[in-house]
Amino acid sequence: MSELRRDPVMGRWVIIAPERGLRPDQVPAIASSRQPAPCVFCGGQEALDPTEIFAIRGNGSARNAPGWRVRVLPNKYPVLRIEGKLVREGIGMFDMMSGVGAHEVIVETPDHSLELADLSEDQITDVLRTYRERMQDLSGDDRFKYVLIFKNQGFQAGATMSHAHSQLIATPVTPKRVKEELQGSQRYYDFKRRCVFCDIIKQETRLTRERIVFENDHFVVLSPFAARAPFETWVLPKQHNSDYLSITEAEFGGLAQALKTVLLKMRHGLNDPPFNFLIHTAPFRRPRPGYWSTIQFDYHWHLEIIPRLTRPAGFEEGSGFYINTIAPEHAAQILVEAPLAPKEPEPVPEPAAEVEVRELAVAG
Amino acid sequence: MSELRRDPVMGRWVIIAPERGLRPDQVPAIASSRQPAPCVFCGGQEALDPTEIFAIRGNGSARNAPGWRVRVLPNKYPVLRIEGKLVREGIGMFDMMSGVGAHEVIVETPDHSLELADLSEDQITDVLRTYRERMQDLSGDDRFKYVLIFKNQGFQAGATMSHAHSQLIATPVTPKRVKEELQGSQRYYDFKRRCVFCDIIKQETRLTRERIVFENDHFVVLSPFAARAPFETWVLPKQHNSDYLSITEAEFGGLAQALKTVLLKMRHGLNDPPFNFLIHTAPFRRPRPGYWSTIQFDYHWHLEIIPRLTRPAGFEEGSGFYINTIAPEHAAQILVEAPLAPKEPEPVPEPAAEVEVRELAVAG
Repeated sequence: MSELRRDPVMGRWVIIAPERGLRPDQVPAIASSRQPAPCVFCGGQEALDPTEIFAIRGNGSARNAPGWRVRVLPNKYPVLRIEGKLVREGIGMFDMMSGVGAHEVIVETPDHSLELADLSEDQITDVLRTYRERMQDLSGDDRFKYVLIFKNQGFQAGATMSHAHSQLIATPVTPKRVKEELQGSQRYYDFKRRCVFCDIIKQETRLTRERIVFENDHFVVLSPFAARAPFETWVLPKQHNSDYLSITEAEFGGLAQALKTVLLKMRHGLNDPPFNFLIHTAPFRRPRPGYWSTIQFDYHWHLEIIPRLTRPAGFEEGSGFYINTIAPEHAAQILVEAPLAPKEPEPVPEPAAEVEVRELAVAG
Repeated sequence: MSELRRDPVMGRWVIIAPERGLRPDQVPAIASSRQPAPCVFCGGQEALDPTEIFAIRGNGSARNAPGWRVRVLPNKYPVLRIEGKLVREGIGMFDMMSGVGAHEVIVETPDHSLELADLSEDQITDVLRTYRERMQDLSGDDRFKYVLIFKNQGFQAGATMSHAHSQLIATPVTPKRVKEELQGSQRYYDFKRRCVFCDIIKQETRLTRERIVFENDHFVVLSPFAARAPFETWVLPKQHNSDYLSITEAEFGGLAQALKTVLLKMRHGLNDPPFNFLIHTAPFRRPRPGYWSTIQFDYHWHLEIIPRLTRPAGFEEGSGFYINTIAPEHAAQILVEAPLAPKEPEPVPEPAAEVEVRELAVAG
């Protein structure tokens, strides 16, 4: 059973999850090849894992049977477990908590050969809708404070299964990084009486535009001013909203289009990098008498995409500084210019045309 | 020229360092092989880089000439640059600072074939003494608030040169992670009137001992209760001291022995993993009238070693949680039992003894 332990100096919670296993003789080898189909996430293989939690299905198809478009399963190697009470305990000066939570896999398509960016906007909308459904459902469990939705694509980004999937982890504490964003947003609101994310969107879209990657009616895609990694990209709803749970129908379509666009641009402009994305939204709010929060005004949900092109090292670990080797303005420009599809392969010249082609090359 | 940019939400400073270069068509390949000797850090190659900042040398040897034991050079691809004024600027709602700092390489030995763990305790002491010398010197530059000493060993830990070296970066702001430790230590001190690190040492050495890896007169080596990664290990001075600058002569020897021991145990017990280590010490203190700090009582310098056995992914990035798949007690036990040298290779059996050996194998 895993447990949460609190660092007594920094107050940071760490998840000790020995069940996910790493024996010292099992240091993971570099293995980046795609697994062959069919895998346990494939359409038609439902009998291999009949633990379906939720699915979006065609009319009349049955649970744990083919016919689904998006399917949610419990993670086979959960970081936190759904069973058990939330117990808090002291061990001398140290603090721990039982490893209660939820860890689910959202299979994005029954088709093993497709990645998220290959799906239609309608199918991506189904994935985004599934995120909301699972968040909504887990918000009813009062052991949980937060649900983090995230995706690892590619071995270097932490993926172990190559079939397209995202994940969620529900946690009994609000994650440190979310708390830092919430506190920062609140400080800004206390000072300005405005949402910091709304102000960022306004400055970026109206003043310089040099960090804007893409825009539609409902979303803006940009390289943040202080991007922590090359090509880090944020997708922000234009309409202020603190909570992914209250995303609108029109926004689903706009988010699907924005996400597909930026993922295709990364694939074709950056040589298909491994990446992570994650959704930052407000923690679950439960009525507390006498407590008044401005979170619905000061916080703004968003999606962050971080390609994994560099290796963090001792300086980053020790300082908490990130070093980014590409200026966000430059990254945005590269993504704006990146195509949505591979360039047409050059037509193979007829043997007779060879000289002409060679001359062209010299002239170019 | 690089610059520091502040994330307007979280307040986190990021270093934008385009000079260190990563063009989108230059995604780094996985390359983990050792570079051949001689390299620019080798003894005898000083003429290739005659920019020596500091060295510990034998009697009579000249600057930028052979005869040194430890040699310090400016980093050829600095994250921050020593030249220039510290300028703070606003860009609309955003904040930036010029990328002023220092980035130096500490070459730990003239011998290309050795790693830090292979050096004698006397030679390691020279390296540790060099850390203090450089910190002391840079503390005189009032543009700097902090010097972080760190080491990346192995490609997966961020090293690009295989010749044994550590690095330092002097920064114009106190790094976020150090600030969090300082704040945490101060909170604990305000509450308990004791140093949190001293309390950790006391609980770990006197109550359970299950997380102790090694101990000598001056240092204790332990797996922290809330270790963020498998086999994370801290080296703590037993005598309370907030500042590496005031390490004693006797402590140098004890630290060299503790460091060599744990690095050899990691090499032979964990299959020579890539790792980072870093020193956390108090920031430079300059007299400020009317300002009283308890930092010399509440903070405790230490060295943290983090083997790189796992890949952080979307959940860690989005939440700030670390997931550690080995309980620190278990990690400590493995390190306690790990040998300081490779086990003797099994004697190659004479052809006549083959049958006997096979039987042994079956019986075992």
